[in-house]
Amino acid sequence: MIQACYLAPDAKQPERLEDLERIVALWQEAKGLLWVDLEHPSPEETDLLGERFGLHPVAVETCREKTANPLVHDYESYLFLVLHAVNFRPQQERVTTSELDVVWGRHAVLTYHRGAVRAITSLRESPGNGLGALMARGTDFFLHALVDRVIDNFQPALEQMDRLIEASEKQIFVEPTDEVLQRLLGLRRSAAHLIRVATAQRDVAGRIVRGEFPQIGKQALAYWRDAYDHLVRMAQAVETQRDLIVSARDAYLSVVSNRMNEVMKVLTIIATIFIPVTFVAGIYGMNFEWMPELKQWWAYPAVLGVMAAVAAGMLIYFRRKRWI
Amino acid sequence: MIQACYLAPDAKQPERLEDLERIVALWQEAKGLLWVDLEHPSPEETDLLGERFGLHPVAVETCREKTANPLVHDYESYLFLVLHAVNFRPQQERVTTSELDVVWGRHAVLTYHRGAVRAITSLRESPGNGLGALMARGTDFFLHALVDRVIDNFQPALEQMDRLIEASEKQIFVEPTDEVLQRLLGLRRSAAHLIRVATAQRDVAGRIVRGEFPQIGKQALAYWRDAYDHLVRMAQAVETQRDLIVSARDAYLSVVSNRMNEVMKVLTIIATIFIPVTFVAGIYGMNFEWMPELKQWWAYPAVLGVMAAVAAGMLIYFRRKRWI
Amino acid sequence: MIQACYLAPDAKQPERLEDLERIVALWQEAKGLLWVDLEHPSPEETDLLGERFGLHPVAVETCREKTANPLVHDYESYLFLVLHAVNFRPQQERVTTSELDVVWGRHAVLTYHRGAVRAITSLRESPGNGLGALMARGTDFFLHALVDRVIDNFQPALEQMDRLIEASEKQIFVEPTDEVLQRLLGLRRSAAHLIRVATAQRDVAGRIVRGEFPQIGKQALAYWRDAYDHLVRMAQAVETQRDLIVSARDAYLSVVSNRMNEVMKVLTIIATIFIPVTFVAGIYGMNFEWMPELKQWWAYPAVLGVMAAVAAGMLIYFRRKRWI
Amino acid sequence: MIQACYLAPDAKQPERLEDLERIVALWQEAKGLLWVDLEHPSPEETDLLGERFGLHPVAVETCREKTANPLVHDYESYLFLVLHAVNFRPQQERVTTSELDVVWGRHAVLTYHRGAVRAITSLRESPGNGLGALMARGTDFFLHALVDRVIDNFQPALEQMDRLIEASEKQIFVEPTDEVLQRLLGLRRSAAHLIRVATAQRDVAGRIVRGEFPQIGKQALAYWRDAYDHLVRMAQAVETQRDLIVSARDAYLSVVSNRMNEVMKVLTIIATIFIPVTFVAGIYGMNFEWMPELKQWWAYPAVLGVMAAVAAGMLIYFRRKRWI
Amino acid sequence: MIQACYLAPDAKQPERLEDLERIVALWQEAKGLLWVDLEHPSPEETDLLGERFGLHPVAVETCREKTANPLVHDYESYLFLVLHAVNFRPQQERVTTSELDVVWGRHAVLTYHRGAVRAITSLRESPGNGLGALMARGTDFFLHALVDRVIDNFQPALEQMDRLIEASEKQIFVEPTDEVLQRLLGLRRSAAHLIRVATAQRDVAGRIVRGEFPQIGKQALAYWRDAYDHLVRMAQAVETQRDLIVSARDAYLSVVSNRMNEVMKVLTIIATIFIPVTFVAGIYGMNFEWMPELKQWWAYPAVLGVMAAVAAGMLIYFRRKRWI
Repeated sequence: MIQACYLAPDAKQPERLEDLERIVALWQEAKGLLWVDLEHPSPEETDLLGERFGLHPVAVETCREKTANPLVHDYESYLFLVLHAVNFRPQQERVTTSELDVVWGRHAVLTYHRGAVRAITSLRESPGNGLGALMARGTDFFLHALVDRVIDNFQPALEQMDRLIEASEKQIFVEPTDEVLQRLLGLRRSAAHLIRVATAQRDVAGRIVRGEFPQIGKQALAYWRDAYDHLVRMAQAVETQRDLIVSARDAYLSVVSNRMNEVMKVLTIIATIFIPVTFVAGIYGMNFEWMPELKQWWAYPAVLGVMAAVAAGMLIYFRRKRWI
Repeated sequence: MIQACYLAPDAKQPERLEDLERIVALWQEAKGLLWVDLEHPSPEETDLLGERFGLHPVAVETCREKTANPLVHDYESYLFLVLHAVNFRPQQERVTTSELDVVWGRHAVLTYHRGAVRAITSLRESPGNGLGALMARGTDFFLHALVDRVIDNFQPALEQMDRLIEASEKQIFVEPTDEVLQRLLGLRRSAAHLIRVATAQRDVAGRIVRGEFPQIGKQALAYWRDAYDHLVRMAQAVETQRDLIVSARDAYLSVVSNRMNEVMKVLTIIATIFIPVTFVAGIYGMNFEWMPELKQWWAYPAVLGVMAAVAAGMLIYFRRKRWI
Repeated sequence: MIQACYLAPDAKQPERLEDLERIVALWQEAKGLLWVDLEHPSPEETDLLGERFGLHPVAVETCREKTANPLVHDYESYLFLVLHAVNFRPQQERVTTSELDVVWGRHAVLTYHRGAVRAITSLRESPGNGLGALMARGTDFFLHALVDRVIDNFQPALEQMDRLIEASEKQIFVEPTDEVLQRLLGLRRSAAHLIRVATAQRDVAGRIVRGEFPQIGKQALAYWRDAYDHLVRMAQAVETQRDLIVSARDAYLSVVSNRMNEVMKVLTIIATIFIPVTFVAGIYGMNFEWMPELKQWWAYPAVLGVMAAVAAGMLIYFRRKRWI
Repeated sequence: MIQACYLAPDAKQPERLEDLERIVALWQEAKGLLWVDLEHPSPEETDLLGERFGLHPVAVETCREKTANPLVHDYESYLFLVLHAVNFRPQQERVTTSELDVVWGRHAVLTYHRGAVRAITSLRESPGNGLGALMARGTDFFLHALVDRVIDNFQPALEQMDRLIEASEKQIFVEPTDEVLQRLLGLRRSAAHLIRVATAQRDVAGRIVRGEFPQIGKQALAYWRDAYDHLVRMAQAVETQRDLIVSARDAYLSVVSNRMNEVMKVLTIIATIFIPVTFVAGIYGMNFEWMPELKQWWAYPAVLGVMAAVAAGMLIYFRRKRWI
Repeated sequence: MIQACYLAPDAKQPERLEDLERIVALWQEAKGLLWVDLEHPSPEETDLLGERFGLHPVAVETCREKTANPLVHDYESYLFLVLHAVNFRPQQERVTTSELDVVWGRHAVLTYHRGAVRAITSLRESPGNGLGALMARGTDFFLHALVDRVIDNFQPALEQMDRLIEASEKQIFVEPTDEVLQRLLGLRRSAAHLIRVATAQRDVAGRIVRGEFPQIGKQALAYWRDAYDHLVRMAQAVETQRDLIVSARDAYLSVVSNRMNEVMKVLTIIATIFIPVTFVAGIYGMNFEWMPELKQWWAYPAVLGVMAAVAAGMLIYFRRKRWI
């Protein structure tokens, strides 16, 4: 599905187009600002990128690929960017990314994405003449607006990760089960994924901020710097999260060890109190004919006393060892 | 709340102002040294930054944000810095930071912060004509004085962290409970936070020290170098603290294992001494009719002797194994 | 075995050659495009590289070596590359690499490899006039096509590793045996191997992308950039895999500890319930003559009641401790 | 306490001075070589650095501070260095450092230190005319001699650390107690301290070696390079030590686990042999009237035989499991 | 012991010299190629380096030192290199290094070493006129040949390390004893040593390859690049080995935990089966007068049946828990 918005040089309101021939004509004319959006494109529509929009074969190939890394390539007359929008699926507790390919030229922006991308939808459906106002500021501002919306998606994912990590941390000290461990393993996988995306995206923004692409005007750079700082902060936040996940997993092992220690202490206390006294009872349960103690009236209470003394001694010993 | 101090070019004593129109007029006049402070500003007052003080929209946006990273941006006619003051809350054993945004120009400094920041208060209320003397040395010295006071807040946080880490280390060897572990987990979170702030702040100072901003005079650089060295030392100190926290947590696991080992040894010693002799007692507690030993007068003492020998043998074995 | 394909300057179809003299003549003529392939070469054939094809002794020596690292050396009139094709052997769950040495000149490409390399076979046997079409685009495109095919081999290895890691992760939570551990150890060895190959290969591509070798035309660079991005992505993917393997191994230890904890709890519950009541039974099994309780009719049920109470008390205690 | 040695331009023997006015006069004259040493200076003496010796306020401030990092600052007419001398206190098994501040000019060197520093003492009291010979070679050689003596202090600390680490490693396999663990924790703290000092000092030397300070003559650089290589080696050695400490601590945990395993095996062997046979004895200790076995003359030996068989079976099982 | 080989400008065969005066004369003449070798030199012979061969005092000092790091220093008229030859002592399972100092000039090479170094011996005793042929190619080729032989020593050490690591890995899964752990600790120490030597040596080669020393001719650089690549590969291989050692040690801990788990299961199964039934036997061993069950003929078989049922129930429970 190919859609386009066109803001003629002196117009205020962008015009919405769906006619391919018209779009291509405007693309080649290179006046005003044209935004072409390919959503869930068929292989044939992808071929158009090369045939009609004149993109380099490598760029077309990268669009076609399933999971290209965030990157920016300079094809002189245009820049080609791959961005990743991030989603956190609460049910699976898993981070997923959806790719957004952007071709940026002086007078036109082309976006290419397989599924619906929230950044695109929110841009296209900005209330009032939001889109027109944005487009009027030129393609470099328009590109920044797009990237900014993609970056904004990171924040909720980070926050949900944070919540899950904190919940796991608490859970560990309450009931350290295999499930917590499995969740931490999953979170670590998600964090690894997020780090890779955030750092790659940060490097893309970094190259733009350093002024590597003269096509991006100086005025827009201030905005890009802001986007860059956001990404730096996010990449650091995920690094910290990974650290905390590792930390939580270590805590898990310690808590389990501690619990086992508690269990062992209970067993040991009970066993060491009762095993010796049971042995004493066993002695006087023997059936030897010649056991003179058995005949004494004071023997039974004496043996009970000895047993009590042994138990008390053990208890004192454990108290000293701070086991109870 | 907008407050300002103004030191006229030839004045000795700064004048305190609260009238917005007057402040803006002095801001535009750009003579002497004007310090404008916005504490807990309302959204409308934040808007003034762009409308009346002529700041770039990105800078205004960064002020408005809740948790911007420490950074320095160069807007040619002024520098925009985000600094973080650090607080350690002893009750929660947690590090918190409060943001301080600073706009620095040749003739004016503007500070913007949500809560009360100790660095600002101590500057505004410096005894005698401390503030006037400082302002008389120019804005780059004034900025350094501000940053220096922000950095000074790190030291007490570091020291309290140090105290807590050492206390935890000792606690581990006395009584390794889940609480120590939880505290270590919290300290690690605090250390991660401090590292992020300290390194970001250090990078800000580093860029200034390297002379990246020609606005900062050469003479002031010697002071900045000092601030930079402080931050480098602090960042290293927190790194070491993180290391020690990890180390303490590893020690925790080892101590728990060691304790469990002790518990197991006690159980094993008691059990292996008494289980065999209890078995012997059990044998002669059997009710078989044909058990000739039971009839012998020497059988009972002999059995007791055998039991003593078994127990003694076990004790010797444990002594050899160095368990007792 | 020496084989060659030659595309004369104006020809469409490449000619296949096996005559050494002819090949060497074409090599020296340096027109059109000549592709010489040495598969499983004998020491004598390797000597030809220096004697007849004029390669530098160091390059010949590197060919002769068993396990050279991926690298690119610039001998001015030609480039010398060592590439590694990757294979994952599912039976041994092990990554192996086969070396491919490439000499690249303006008009000729020479490939040298010990075993059959899939990239070479697929190139030589490309359907229709695939090979001719490729060769017609010049040696730098031809080299890229070769490298691209070598890189494509990484993907299946990565995917099989991924599958094995995920299978191990699940296995850990089902039945943590020594075998899972051994497999993880093997996977880590494979990952270490892959990382070394992928990063070395990435550095080779990176040097070419940075334009370090003016022999490679600007047009071909766009293709190389793509290859470079692929390798960057792969190197990152293996790093993540290594991380996940470490993570899985840590989980293994935690799961085993958790299992042991479960085992200990069962033992402790049974032991602490029955050891005390067995002791009570032992008491009334003693044969003292003066044990007045034995004579009472209510004594037996009373003792049974006490035993039940002790057991119930223990069960309540364990329930409170959340052990059952 | 201010002391000075002065070597007049043509003199052979340095002259020792204690008169402040004379020292300051020679300092300003800037001929020959003047070495001023402030040991354990009072605050007033520290003030003199700025007032009489003309040091920059930041340099004076750094002297006053308790624990400045090793650093080198260039104040054009002089260099300001902070060095750290290292001591290993065998009793506390702890590394301590004492700071030495050095001001280096073309014709004068000023050293400032709170406690006695061995490097200074050994320099001042070098036998014969050692000091005069050194001073005759110029201030850059003199500075190197000073730094060299400071560096030499590292070696014994490193060696004592090494000895303690090796002792701990052995102790772990003999008797893994909490004390070993605590010592390892302390050693790690010391190593962290040493690394910080050694790397900072190395960076100071590195900047001098790279020729960043034109004041240091080319001839002296060869000597500095040597000092730099020493520091690099030391920093690496401490890194390795830290690694080995971590390694030892891991080994500790493994050894404790292994010991526990041994303990558990003994318990399990004893318990699993005797618990079943005790049960058999318990059966025939029951007082049922109708237990026909009890009447048979062969029953007792038969039961003993069964018990022996059970025990033997268990032993064979354990032997097969390689537990005994 | 001073030995020398001299190849006169037009000679074919090198001449062997032992006369110091003659050697020094040829050294100063600086024609042809002179190779001076000092093996196990006395302090007086070391002094000659400065006095007769004109080396810089720092270079002489570095020779005298016991354990200098690999390095290369440029003294303009000559280069000074410290190389480390590696030996693996199979008995102690330990890596040792022997230092080789090399002074390289346009017309002379001087080697200095305390013990016998295999690289030197193999060079001096190369069969036929091997040495003459080598020397005829100039000092830079000669130096490369020397370094190459030193590097070749790494390979066997690496391979023996590899064998030991793999043997340890297998041993861990067969019988995880303290000895394996101790060996792994020793291997880690060796790996740390090897890494330090290999990376330092690699940096030496790297500086030469980058053309930092114009004295080394362009033609020889191709050979050096080869040596550099070897060292890079070796450094990486040792890094991987260190990783695998850490991995093996982690596996050790896991295997021990797993074994302990097995032991605990056996104990728990036996104990939980027999403790309850022993208790039942204990009940009917009590001597109460009023125990009506004792009088019933069916009581004994019924109790046996209950015991069997309890045991069977436990076994089913364990089977469900997958313990047996």
